Amino acid sequence: MTPAGRQPRADPPHARSRSGRRPGEGDTRKAILAAATGCFAELGYDRATIRVIAAEAAVDPALIIHYFGSKEALFRAALELPLKPPSILQQALAADADPECVGKTVVRSFLEAWDPPEPRRHLLVMLRSAMTNEAAMGMVRDLLANDIFGPVTEILGVPDGSFRANLLGTQFLGLAVMRYISGLEPLASASIDDLVAAIGPTVQRYLTGDLTR
Amino acid sequence: MTPAGRQPRADPPHARSRSGRRPGEGDTRKAILAAATGCFAELGYDRATIRVIAAEAAVDPALIIHYFGSKEALFRAALELPLKPPSILQQALAADADPECVGKTVVRSFLEAWDPPEPRRHLLVMLRSAMTNEAAMGMVRDLLANDIFGPVTEILGVPDGSFRANLLGTQFLGLAVMRYISGLEPLASASIDDLVAAIGPTVQRYLTGDLTR
Repeated sequence: MTPAGRQPRADPPHARSRSGRRPGEGDTRKAILAAATGCFAELGYDRATIRVIAAEAAVDPALIIHYFGSKEALFRAALELPLKPPSILQQALAADADPECVGKTVVRSFLEAWDPPEPRRHLLVMLRSAMTNEAAMGMVRDLLANDIFGPVTEILGVPDGSFRANLLGTQFLGLAVMRYISGLEPLASASIDDLVAAIGPTVQRYLTGDLTR
Repeated sequence: MTPAGRQPRADPPHARSRSGRRPGEGDTRKAILAAATGCFAELGYDRATIRVIAAEAAVDPALIIHYFGSKEALFRAALELPLKPPSILQQALAADADPECVGKTVVRSFLEAWDPPEPRRHLLVMLRSAMTNEAAMGMVRDLLANDIFGPVTEILGVPDGSFRANLLGTQFLGLAVMRYISGLEPLASASIDDLVAAIGPTVQRYLTGDLTR
């Protein structure tokens, strides 16, 4: 692990962190995680090495291992969504007195949460890394199963809940990729209101409708 | 361009093709295209070099340039879907006397076309390459706009046809990624009949329904 091709640092951040003149541990961890998220999103799992992430965060590579343990663990942390779909669903269910309107509320909440630029980087982390590295694909699959589809199934609390959760996944994943990654028009610039009207009934049906006919 | 790390060929295919003892031009072109599709699907755009593809097809790299002109042109050819969504839609519309049942017919045709292993490789070509190379992303975007959403919009022949075509895209893209790439259950193993019943009405609505409420 020679730092070939990189400029030597006069004042290694690792040393600074020991001196107590750096911001608190929480800030350093956050800075590393933000840098990692950006690198995984731009470069994918393989090319976002610990060294590249450390340079981006302006910290010593050893500090990343100190805080996260391994690249795998750092990647899992970067996959953690700031606004989790199960929470979005649960809040929509709690907010809506009428269970027949919850589909539109969920679509609106999803778009309001994901339209800002920051959250969509997590989508890029997920897709770019899963498409380029088998281990990353496995971790993304685990995340989807354990952190999204499992909790959504539990929230739905019906016998075919896992099938319904998967159907919701097809609609929201396709919407996210089309709107945030492919950037194809007119969908990428469609207003939230138009999308709520168009997609709300689909989501409503996957949540509570009869799926057998 | 030294063939370092590769075994020397006693009988270069390029020479064989001139001798007339190789299969016809069409077969060679097909073999190159099949190898390219496999390499782009497995490796993504950057790592699937002309040299790697040539080795996979057991032809001389120069022969690939002879047939396709450039790596970009070869990639565009590999993106060509064996069963194009506009054709699937048009056939479903022609086959169905009742326009209110066409959603289910489209979902069934889509799944019957895409469930076999060969077509889904094209999905991997598209996703893996678009997620790892900007130029490939541009070509995938062109293909989606010109070969899928444009023709589907024309087939629909209504003022909001391009928005409807995009909505169909969100549902089918999400379905394809969830079923063929993430492999998450129960969706990956769901029967075609169950998916037709569950997703058919969504597709019907995006095709002909009122999207404003």
